[in-house]
Amino acid sequence: MKAIIQTNPDDPRALEWGDAPTPEIGDGEVLVKVRAAAVNRADILQARGHYPPPKGVTDILGLECAGVIEKVGDNAGGWQVGDEVCCLLSGGGFAEYAAVPVGQLLPVPKGWELERAVAMPEVACTVYSNIVMVAGLKEGDTLLVHGGAGGIGTFAIQLAKSLGATVAVTAGSAEKLERCRELGADILINYREDAFEDVLKEHGGANVILDIMGAKYLDRNVKALAMDGHLVIIGMQGGVKGELNIGRLLSKRGSITATGLRYRDKADKARIVSATEDIVWPLLENGTITDQIHATMDIRDTAKAHELLDSGEVTGKIVLVVGD
Amino acid sequence: MKAIIQTNPDDPRALEWGDAPTPEIGDGEVLVKVRAAAVNRADILQARGHYPPPKGVTDILGLECAGVIEKVGDNAGGWQVGDEVCCLLSGGGFAEYAAVPVGQLLPVPKGWELERAVAMPEVACTVYSNIVMVAGLKEGDTLLVHGGAGGIGTFAIQLAKSLGATVAVTAGSAEKLERCRELGADILINYREDAFEDVLKEHGGANVILDIMGAKYLDRNVKALAMDGHLVIIGMQGGVKGELNIGRLLSKRGSITATGLRYRDKADKARIVSATEDIVWPLLENGTITDQIHATMDIRDTAKAHELLDSGEVTGKIVLVVGD
Repeated sequence: MKAIIQTNPDDPRALEWGDAPTPEIGDGEVLVKVRAAAVNRADILQARGHYPPPKGVTDILGLECAGVIEKVGDNAGGWQVGDEVCCLLSGGGFAEYAAVPVGQLLPVPKGWELERAVAMPEVACTVYSNIVMVAGLKEGDTLLVHGGAGGIGTFAIQLAKSLGATVAVTAGSAEKLERCRELGADILINYREDAFEDVLKEHGGANVILDIMGAKYLDRNVKALAMDGHLVIIGMQGGVKGELNIGRLLSKRGSITATGLRYRDKADKARIVSATEDIVWPLLENGTITDQIHATMDIRDTAKAHELLDSGEVTGKIVLVVGD
Repeated sequence: MKAIIQTNPDDPRALEWGDAPTPEIGDGEVLVKVRAAAVNRADILQARGHYPPPKGVTDILGLECAGVIEKVGDNAGGWQVGDEVCCLLSGGGFAEYAAVPVGQLLPVPKGWELERAVAMPEVACTVYSNIVMVAGLKEGDTLLVHGGAGGIGTFAIQLAKSLGATVAVTAGSAEKLERCRELGADILINYREDAFEDVLKEHGGANVILDIMGAKYLDRNVKALAMDGHLVIIGMQGGVKGELNIGRLLSKRGSITATGLRYRDKADKARIVSATEDIVWPLLENGTITDQIHATMDIRDTAKAHELLDSGEVTGKIVLVVGD
């Protein structure tokens, strides 16, 4: 089959559509003929050598794809050849074929095109598992999400609003904040102009913070928490080590979790995918949550797609289409 | 009434048995004639000016007491004059009388003397709420508890063992560790001789850590965590600010909560007291968990009791008896 191959490990942009062995499927897996994949920041980190795949997983990039089941293994849980599916992957989505554990398959939401649904598994599972399953966001709470106009942010705004929460976002331009407002965000913070922790303090603090900055925002995020608030760190774009004021955290009875999806075991991923399908898929099907696709490109242009995502000028997700 | 009065705010040992107004009881409260109280490290901190009572709470020391109900307010939830009770307090236990919200009353466990039961409310509610309600310790998990021979530690060992967990403890002497072993601790670490994080690593890491050291142990505690582990910080004897390696925390999908009982609102305290009564009181009544009382003193000797607790030479709790 064809797949995106990194031809030079020292050059994260040396990504070519080349030959790779078609994956074998094992027990509890299906082979999916990929029609589209979507780009995540983690793919860029992996191409830079910073985010290796879990043991036993292909080093082909791609954490989500959508397509049609071509072959089913034993114990495939009712999935059949010809089913259209979206897939949460540990890797290997940027290819003509992907082997997918059945616990990581989701149906294409009713009324959705497969080439749009492809942008949903990673963001839906990430946001739902973190803000609800980890941090317990509920009606009446306030969520703060950094990078409100990104793939994670645009989804988190819509999901949190549908759960009855107040949503505060940070972003770096008026245009991006306007996009967040259109999606339902209540409290718009231009981080170039205002200190988000001060704004949140005026609003009683954040019950849940979904953070991608890590060290750079650690102390400020703790300041922004409400009593019994929970900071969930899923990215470290602002560094790895930061000073934690435990006294301040204790004064709020606060919690900090640093977490991710990729290295969870199959059972854990299946649990998250199943809960996400139960709660989020109906919201996709009834139009409560819409996709936020910034651009659709040919998968041969993966390097360009990475460059675009890296520019910071993207609102939402980038989809890569696999031609025949 | 008589109560322990701090006669000089600059001298934490200036504690005299003097006159104070008998507390008034309000809606949902009872008046308890105190027969005994127990000492907590928080009392020492408060006498030093570091741990002020919550708003509206007496500044008389004492976070737990036991005695007999002398008077009931409206909405006293079935409690009656003459009932023997243990009380979780926000303050005011070192006195002849204490006003107690009914949600913070516990019966004296069947078969227990009141003067021993008095040492249970604070430690039972603290340990149960943190290791189970916050951190979700369950059968087969490993708990690490620092200061295994102290009031918190001796209780945590017994509770965690009764829940089917493996228990690792740190302490500063062979004698203290032997006491921990007798109570059921499985992994004994003399912190003067071994690095606890290395020992825990050999045992697969701690699913839950109950910590009283704060900053001094922050990085080492994160190293000691197992995958999906939870560090719960309830004391800062080793300082307030420490460097957090978020990358390391993320590699374990770890959580950190810094928390305490005293500033929780009445509803939250009632929820914790009720759960603790349901789960822990039967374990006291059937002998699974025994009291660990280091010394029983007259309440007039509160300053001496503080000095003794501060010496670090105490195994378990100190009880103060109120004479007639």
